[in-house]
Amino acid sequence: MTLASQQTTDHGVTGPGPVMPGTAEAKAFLEDFGILSSFGATDAGGVHRPAATTSHTDSRMWLIGRLREFGLEVIVDGVGNVYGTATVIPGAPYVLIGSHTDSQPTSGRFDGAYGVLAAAHAVAHVSARVQEGSLSPTVNLAVVDWFNEEGARFQPSIMGSTTFTGARDAASTLDVNDVQGTSVRQALTDSGFLGDDEPPECCGYAEIHIEQGRILECEGLQIGVVTGGWTATKMTVEVIGAQGHTGATDMSDRHDALVGAARVVLAARAIADRHAHRADRAKVFTAVARLLLEPESPGVIASKATVSVDLRSDSPELVPVVAEEFHRSLTEIAADGEVDLRVHSEYLRAGATYAPVGIEVAEQVADELRLSHRRMLTRAGHDSVPLSEVVPTVMLFVPSVEGVSHHEAEYTHDDDLLRGLSVLRGVAERMVCGAVIDADRPHRSPLMSSPERRASGKGAVTAR
Amino acid sequence: MTLASQQTTDHGVTGPGPVMPGTAEAKAFLEDFGILSSFGATDAGGVHRPAATTSHTDSRMWLIGRLREFGLEVIVDGVGNVYGTATVIPGAPYVLIGSHTDSQPTSGRFDGAYGVLAAAHAVAHVSARVQEGSLSPTVNLAVVDWFNEEGARFQPSIMGSTTFTGARDAASTLDVNDVQGTSVRQALTDSGFLGDDEPPECCGYAEIHIEQGRILECEGLQIGVVTGGWTATKMTVEVIGAQGHTGATDMSDRHDALVGAARVVLAARAIADRHAHRADRAKVFTAVARLLLEPESPGVIASKATVSVDLRSDSPELVPVVAEEFHRSLTEIAADGEVDLRVHSEYLRAGATYAPVGIEVAEQVADELRLSHRRMLTRAGHDSVPLSEVVPTVMLFVPSVEGVSHHEAEYTHDDDLLRGLSVLRGVAERMVCGAVIDADRPHRSPLMSSPERRASGKGAVTAR
Repeated sequence: MTLASQQTTDHGVTGPGPVMPGTAEAKAFLEDFGILSSFGATDAGGVHRPAATTSHTDSRMWLIGRLREFGLEVIVDGVGNVYGTATVIPGAPYVLIGSHTDSQPTSGRFDGAYGVLAAAHAVAHVSARVQEGSLSPTVNLAVVDWFNEEGARFQPSIMGSTTFTGARDAASTLDVNDVQGTSVRQALTDSGFLGDDEPPECCGYAEIHIEQGRILECEGLQIGVVTGGWTATKMTVEVIGAQGHTGATDMSDRHDALVGAARVVLAARAIADRHAHRADRAKVFTAVARLLLEPESPGVIASKATVSVDLRSDSPELVPVVAEEFHRSLTEIAADGEVDLRVHSEYLRAGATYAPVGIEVAEQVADELRLSHRRMLTRAGHDSVPLSEVVPTVMLFVPSVEGVSHHEAEYTHDDDLLRGLSVLRGVAERMVCGAVIDADRPHRSPLMSSPERRASGKGAVTAR
Repeated sequence: MTLASQQTTDHGVTGPGPVMPGTAEAKAFLEDFGILSSFGATDAGGVHRPAATTSHTDSRMWLIGRLREFGLEVIVDGVGNVYGTATVIPGAPYVLIGSHTDSQPTSGRFDGAYGVLAAAHAVAHVSARVQEGSLSPTVNLAVVDWFNEEGARFQPSIMGSTTFTGARDAASTLDVNDVQGTSVRQALTDSGFLGDDEPPECCGYAEIHIEQGRILECEGLQIGVVTGGWTATKMTVEVIGAQGHTGATDMSDRHDALVGAARVVLAARAIADRHAHRADRAKVFTAVARLLLEPESPGVIASKATVSVDLRSDSPELVPVVAEEFHRSLTEIAADGEVDLRVHSEYLRAGATYAPVGIEVAEQVADELRLSHRRMLTRAGHDSVPLSEVVPTVMLFVPSVEGVSHHEAEYTHDDDLLRGLSVLRGVAERMVCGAVIDADRPHRSPLMSSPERRASGKGAVTAR
């Protein structure tokens, strides 16, 4: 550790110490995590909480109650992001700490929910330390539960946080429809989460999440300090055939959208296979998901199939290469005339770059807590990705057993959850006292002056 | 024509003559067809009338009114089959003539509906001829609209007629659920079509349908006399993978149900390709349809995919060969461990064999009407397939433009519709006077004494 980095990161904060297993604060956290996991709980130990469904809404109503018990003021912005603010310096910006409570369908109970709950307990703890005079904050602190990180019901994913940062437009976010034709606007209104509060000005962000990979587990390490993320290209491919009779239509007359879609699925997999053992050890992951057939009946050859394609790599320069390979495959698939292929909504999600000073602060906190750690990349996207583009951002990982992710069997040991909470608390204390953050140039969300906000009345969260 | 067959088929009936374009009876039929096509009409000229949906129910309520205007008594049995009976000889069995009013999703307006409406007009015409003393029937006549021939909403297809014949059990038919979990029992109850009437005893059956192929059109012929049908094997294949993260899960940890399903889809197609140019000119058609993913989200690798597989041929002995090839493909697909494959509900639908005497009668009627005709097989299944197993059955085709089927563009010219109606009338007259039928051994449906029937009260069709 150099003198320079110590000056930047120390800020006179002495660590709060770890959250020790068996203590009241550990029990309170784990008990809360058990309650949060009960909303949309599945028989196999997971949760089913797609954005703005009843189970998700119920979990957020409980969370709001808990934030208020922690003495935080709850506000809800115009795209359903929920904040619990601890304001000690009126007019000063906020360090936001959070993640998301929505889940994939029949998925794991840790993804997102752990980060939101750890943020709530960290903010409550830091607020108490401020009140008792142990800390001298220079800015404020708030918990955040971003709306629809998963993108299971409404696409794209990471919706609430990208709208907060301005990378997405609020009006277009509210206009997104689910498969049943229900808009985000309607779903938020119906669930009482179309708020009209101004979101906080943000001068820094921190998030903790399960790793969703096996690296920490395989290396026997306790904390991952995330330095950046994989780059991803995502696209929607429409496969256009012609409806027909599964039994009677001449084989030579068939234009089977499902046959075309099957070729697309296997073409994406073939690309990952080709790059499986690269000399430069760069990784390429590909997936096709969510195949929607129109119409869908045993008796008809479908006229249309729509699939979501995900191509990603830890090597940013490899992603355009892989995308080009995929486009060549599509051209080859369309060549025999069975189907036409149309690529929609292709976009590149650049890998995040987390603030170097934040990485050092996180490592310093982990060292003080005598926790083993390493730097690593995130394969998955997180709300911290768009946040890192507007404010200095810290991203932390705790181990995931066998790297299981988006599955009910997803699991992280209690002790790892508590270790992560300990590090998050330490990072939060340092950030609120001026480490990492950029207090002079806070991010002012476009949601602070959206037309939706101006047009609507008061009454953000409907009592249920 | 041999003397023997003349004796069998003539029965002293002189043909009613053709339905001439421009006459009142032609206009009445085409006007009715326009009205029937309006229920669930799509912008592209098709219909969307899956079984027991609102549009289907509305079409059947209209049909019932029309049957009553024709002086027929409407009865509804315990699985939603609707009959319009013309009883002139109390106690005698019935020749049933009909098809189905349900459709595939966003499908053609002729498939099934033409056959039901032609039956209604044919029965009305024959009844009038009986009343005026021009015919001396030996049995009774009835129109039938079989429930759920298409199997789009509830599987399997050809449901109402197979339950009528006893090939399916009524209780299991009523227990079938659609994707939303609504049972046939509930859907029929809600729509007012869970009847408690005894279905008629049946001594013969006739059906007319569009060809769903190009043979008549290519050969410039007007009527197809169907001698039998293709043999089909149908099965449901479950592809079992493991849920995961489309971006984060290691490629080597993936068990992607959609990748497995894609291989199944292409394996089925490859079999058809291999048999495309057989020396014996036998045909093999294969299709996979209705891929259901669980869960279905852009962010998750699906844990399960369910597909419907259809393998069929005009050569009955080839179908088990093809099914065996498909099973070998499944074994190969499962071999690399990506997915497990489970085959459910595999069944063989034997090709129908229509009564030889019925074929001769149909040809005789077509000759009298000076219509060109040929014998042919049906590739598709029809309600006449199970009926042919219990009573002598006549199956007729009219041309389909370009063989389009299960598509909104399905089309048959008005003149062809009227020619088909003319032949159906002639066949009905002969059958009601004793041709083709087996009046001494009528089929008595198990539905006549089903527990559902005994348990329920009166009030078959709810007025809406």
